[in-house]
Amino acid sequence: MSHNTFGHLFRVTTWGESHGIALGCVVDGCPPGIAFSEAEIQAYLDKRKPGQSKYTTQRREPDQVRVLSGVMLQDDGVTMISTGTPISMMIENTDQRSKDYGDIARQYRPGHADYTYDVKYGIRDYRGGGRSSARETAARVAAGAIARKIVPGLIVRGALVGMGIHAIDRSRWDWDEVDNNPFFTPDAGSVETFASYLDGIRKAGSSIGAVIEVVAENVPAGLGAPVYGKLDQDIASYLMSINAVKGVEIGDGFDSAKLTGEENADEMRMGNDGKPIFLSNHAGGILGGISSGAPVVARFAVKPTSSILTPRRSIDADGNQVDVMTKGRHDPCVGIRAVPIGEAMVACAIADHYLRHRGQTGRI
Amino acid sequence: MSHNTFGHLFRVTTWGESHGIALGCVVDGCPPGIAFSEAEIQAYLDKRKPGQSKYTTQRREPDQVRVLSGVMLQDDGVTMISTGTPISMMIENTDQRSKDYGDIARQYRPGHADYTYDVKYGIRDYRGGGRSSARETAARVAAGAIARKIVPGLIVRGALVGMGIHAIDRSRWDWDEVDNNPFFTPDAGSVETFASYLDGIRKAGSSIGAVIEVVAENVPAGLGAPVYGKLDQDIASYLMSINAVKGVEIGDGFDSAKLTGEENADEMRMGNDGKPIFLSNHAGGILGGISSGAPVVARFAVKPTSSILTPRRSIDADGNQVDVMTKGRHDPCVGIRAVPIGEAMVACAIADHYLRHRGQTGRI
Amino acid sequence: MSHNTFGHLFRVTTWGESHGIALGCVVDGCPPGIAFSEAEIQAYLDKRKPGQSKYTTQRREPDQVRVLSGVMLQDDGVTMISTGTPISMMIENTDQRSKDYGDIARQYRPGHADYTYDVKYGIRDYRGGGRSSARETAARVAAGAIARKIVPGLIVRGALVGMGIHAIDRSRWDWDEVDNNPFFTPDAGSVETFASYLDGIRKAGSSIGAVIEVVAENVPAGLGAPVYGKLDQDIASYLMSINAVKGVEIGDGFDSAKLTGEENADEMRMGNDGKPIFLSNHAGGILGGISSGAPVVARFAVKPTSSILTPRRSIDADGNQVDVMTKGRHDPCVGIRAVPIGEAMVACAIADHYLRHRGQTGRI
Amino acid sequence: MSHNTFGHLFRVTTWGESHGIALGCVVDGCPPGIAFSEAEIQAYLDKRKPGQSKYTTQRREPDQVRVLSGVMLQDDGVTMISTGTPISMMIENTDQRSKDYGDIARQYRPGHADYTYDVKYGIRDYRGGGRSSARETAARVAAGAIARKIVPGLIVRGALVGMGIHAIDRSRWDWDEVDNNPFFTPDAGSVETFASYLDGIRKAGSSIGAVIEVVAENVPAGLGAPVYGKLDQDIASYLMSINAVKGVEIGDGFDSAKLTGEENADEMRMGNDGKPIFLSNHAGGILGGISSGAPVVARFAVKPTSSILTPRRSIDADGNQVDVMTKGRHDPCVGIRAVPIGEAMVACAIADHYLRHRGQTGRI
Repeated sequence: MSHNTFGHLFRVTTWGESHGIALGCVVDGCPPGIAFSEAEIQAYLDKRKPGQSKYTTQRREPDQVRVLSGVMLQDDGVTMISTGTPISMMIENTDQRSKDYGDIARQYRPGHADYTYDVKYGIRDYRGGGRSSARETAARVAAGAIARKIVPGLIVRGALVGMGIHAIDRSRWDWDEVDNNPFFTPDAGSVETFASYLDGIRKAGSSIGAVIEVVAENVPAGLGAPVYGKLDQDIASYLMSINAVKGVEIGDGFDSAKLTGEENADEMRMGNDGKPIFLSNHAGGILGGISSGAPVVARFAVKPTSSILTPRRSIDADGNQVDVMTKGRHDPCVGIRAVPIGEAMVACAIADHYLRHRGQTGRI
Repeated sequence: MSHNTFGHLFRVTTWGESHGIALGCVVDGCPPGIAFSEAEIQAYLDKRKPGQSKYTTQRREPDQVRVLSGVMLQDDGVTMISTGTPISMMIENTDQRSKDYGDIARQYRPGHADYTYDVKYGIRDYRGGGRSSARETAARVAAGAIARKIVPGLIVRGALVGMGIHAIDRSRWDWDEVDNNPFFTPDAGSVETFASYLDGIRKAGSSIGAVIEVVAENVPAGLGAPVYGKLDQDIASYLMSINAVKGVEIGDGFDSAKLTGEENADEMRMGNDGKPIFLSNHAGGILGGISSGAPVVARFAVKPTSSILTPRRSIDADGNQVDVMTKGRHDPCVGIRAVPIGEAMVACAIADHYLRHRGQTGRI
Repeated sequence: MSHNTFGHLFRVTTWGESHGIALGCVVDGCPPGIAFSEAEIQAYLDKRKPGQSKYTTQRREPDQVRVLSGVMLQDDGVTMISTGTPISMMIENTDQRSKDYGDIARQYRPGHADYTYDVKYGIRDYRGGGRSSARETAARVAAGAIARKIVPGLIVRGALVGMGIHAIDRSRWDWDEVDNNPFFTPDAGSVETFASYLDGIRKAGSSIGAVIEVVAENVPAGLGAPVYGKLDQDIASYLMSINAVKGVEIGDGFDSAKLTGEENADEMRMGNDGKPIFLSNHAGGILGGISSGAPVVARFAVKPTSSILTPRRSIDADGNQVDVMTKGRHDPCVGIRAVPIGEAMVACAIADHYLRHRGQTGRI
Repeated sequence: MSHNTFGHLFRVTTWGESHGIALGCVVDGCPPGIAFSEAEIQAYLDKRKPGQSKYTTQRREPDQVRVLSGVMLQDDGVTMISTGTPISMMIENTDQRSKDYGDIARQYRPGHADYTYDVKYGIRDYRGGGRSSARETAARVAAGAIARKIVPGLIVRGALVGMGIHAIDRSRWDWDEVDNNPFFTPDAGSVETFASYLDGIRKAGSSIGAVIEVVAENVPAGLGAPVYGKLDQDIASYLMSINAVKGVEIGDGFDSAKLTGEENADEMRMGNDGKPIFLSNHAGGILGGISSGAPVVARFAVKPTSSILTPRRSIDADGNQVDVMTKGRHDPCVGIRAVPIGEAMVACAIADHYLRHRGQTGRI
């Protein structure tokens, strides 16, 4: 995790700003012989892409991905096989026309990274948030699409489990429901609640936060490199790096602070297949920083975007006190589109640890 | 963050098991000219050390640190000045007598890392938990003592803010209170509650979780290396690497998911000293992964230790189904001793980013 | 130095194959505020580009670079200012038409990386050498063009000092001569020798090796991170990573093994400006892995390309014994075009250490 | 390769100064289940240790190694089995009595790192060279002893092949001879020459350089991570990091610059065992940065130590011009003791790439 690269053996470097020429990523260390297609990657990008419903920003970003290197295109003209060399992927920005940014170029929007980028670098790309824009996450999703292929049988799925003051009813959890609604909620019963709640937020020109849960199944036991490359630690790091994320939990997370040792520890028994099974999963599939074979469960909190219509007090680069109002098309709940991003990041963390574990131990 | 090393420019490598000969760390990349003494480091270690009250394990671990390299001892015989070369520190284990571990050597304690270490490595040091023991954290505290010296004026303090079902009253927060009670709570009014609550837990041979908050003041604005070396991301990673931690938050954390954009964004004004100030600190001092100059606020949840007297169902390395009960002296609330550890990890993260920021930008 | 990324604070990731869609690099960690233009980068690329004389391959590769991110284009439409975020650069391949590679796709050319790529990955991009092609080095040259801007006053120049059995006369060294001849030799008196020698090699369908020297001036004293990030060590690593390089020297290099301590140690005196000066430079400007302020001098040996017209014995991927002859347009002396590549790599190493030194010590 | 750590999956961190309390290393990422003993490690340290003959310094350094962590001691009381956690090793310094360093503390010995350490850090440990002392290499040898165990069947052997103006006769190469003489030469016929030559050097209070060759056999084909983690590149980096090394070659090295493509390229045939064989080994077992299965051959040049009896011109920390003469016991040819160090570094590089290759490709 250094600057704009994450991962050790499965390494991802991303680049590009919101309103630059293009953005992209380089996936380095991918095992050779992994088969995929641009269409598969595109499917994940489309899930993240704005303008899918009235609940996400109405900007049009086709987000068309191209694979530039690291593969041999097969005779079918579609299938790509990784060669083990860096896979470069690029998404051209279509909406990069120069325009007059006016005051925005010098004003610091409250809650945004405008001020901190300026104070760090002494210069900042004010066009659409530059590098701090959520557009950067498209590159993560592309990388994640490849990461999903590394571990045999791995399934990584995410869902929105809370929005503002509303939470889902976990007893109604249905993964099939997630793609049936614009909120990625797994609880069909919550759709109407979220819809009317978010409509109100949107019409008020306001915004709201959300909580996302990602579950990875078929994660082999043994992944993780304690004590500073723990699997949960890297998942926390990867998820916290997503724009607007302010909290990360594994398994019971903060609730585990309220439990007794009896309640919290997952008991074990031998399964019918001669493999150990856990009778509960408070640990979220990770013990001592190493995967246990139980599903890996992570959750993260996404703050509301600060791009709202209500004017807020701030300053500009010259030290003037100003009121800032963010016009334009924005997501009332950016957490929704964080679902495929969270999936991608968890998939990347698991892929990296799969290779690292194989490297150190040869036990896979 | 790789295996047993964390940090980029301020790098810490730790080693050692609970019941081995010794444990220690190598602090690499420390700037030259930093003055400290073994006594200063020892003071932090003593805070973490067990046996300080009836609420922590009664094991005796003197935890006496020795600095083996990387410094020039001054004529006063006490002050050490860093030379810029690796600072090696060692703590010898006094309680390493070999004993008969009996069944424990093959049984997997529920909620512990016994099973995952075994499945990962095919071998594990069952003596006192080996590398997964909380004893490893002594090395972190020693490293943190040096990290605190890197950033001029930096203050990093931690406190326990919740234990089980009880939480402190934040309106009564008093940093001076933290060292006056065995729980590191900043709320004098909570001491009695925690005391009687934890007495009950302890007498029942049970255990309970806790929530710790760490606040860093005088963090210069500009620290953090987006988008995969964000300051909050590295703090999350560092904190999640601590034994038993299951969740991490920055600023309002999970509560920010419940807020609107108006409520969440911290407004800005110019302070009397001509520097920007934030009118609130929902962000916990970090925007876009970069410190804003406001206090950095992080919280983490510590699960209850699984070392409890109540027998729990498990298996052993031969696949037998067994009942496991952990006898011996254990912390009823390991979260208490996590306070100085959390401080150390946050200090290390900030020190590393201070050097990285200076390296890339030269703006400090 | 990991996979396809090199550097710690000034980090370069390259991607792309010889006959793929494009190749490029991501320069991460560049300080903000560095000014450059695409034309400046292009000038270095043009120096490396084939087809400049009859002594380099006659393939046409326009090698037109585009900067895709990490900069703010100034109002003059030419000057770019780095923002501190990743600078992505891309060079599209124009000669990527698919053709029938026939036997080449399965034969292992002796002296090439064909066999080793296949045995490592189980798959290889046989089109033009894929990732092992010298075309990859264009990306290094682009990155080096930016690296040259990091250290104030830094000058990095390279020259060919030997070709096959011929060497230059160092007493005639003239930097101005280097760009006046197709061999990058600094010795005008050697041009005719090299010309007739290489003509013979070329007409015979053969090839020949070369020795390149790179000299960096105005390198501040103090750069280097002993003992495993020594400046000479990183320069050796960077140069050895260039295709076909088989040896690297610093200062007197292998000749220093023949010297006595009296002959080898560079004596010191105070210069007229009150700064230490060295009375000789056997050390090549580096002592204990740290720059001394004297010019940094590195040399590297480039083997002859194995792409020759004489048939050579080999095998193919099916284990058949075959004779391989490499038709097509090839460099009779690839070492010539290694001059700008070597310069770029040395510049990158110095830039990285400049930032690292500033980070750890703040002494620049 | 960062500061005082090298390697990616097999990672070594060293610490300690010449005249400090102790020195040591942490070997991280060692696979679990590797068996070794302290005596095995000690045997390599003894080979490096001074005072073995009149041709090495007469200082007495017992260099007794202790393994402090990362292993389970077996019932035989001797065999240690790695657990996959960090292996910490320590060598206590016996000769650390404080003494009056007088002028040495402020004078810069020509050819030493005194000046560069001071200019870099603003402080330096003048006791015996501090961190720049050759004593640091003891830690490398200890790490190398474990590295040798990682790759099944791996043999890494080194020999001195040149000293000053004398070189061995390679036609008389006999590995069994290496340990029979105080020079580690494989050519029995060279012993007398080296002996009388070095006697003259020693009696004159002078010193001389040397060339060392390291050969690794049974290196599996496929190791190396192009294009910036090439095996030859990492070997070059590791060897160049050794004190006093000024040049590194792979295979024919600088001589390959004099060869034609016909001469240089190693032809291939199928061996009787159905495996490819190379009919020559100009490449030194590495093509395109990846091991070919042929022996890996590396050579490095060691400059003469600058600790000589003849006074040399220099300056001190106050800018005074002084004459420096290094009294005391020193190696007339430090290159001799570099043989086991070079072996250790090559073994570490190969071990690391073995794990990395297994991690990325699973093909071992």
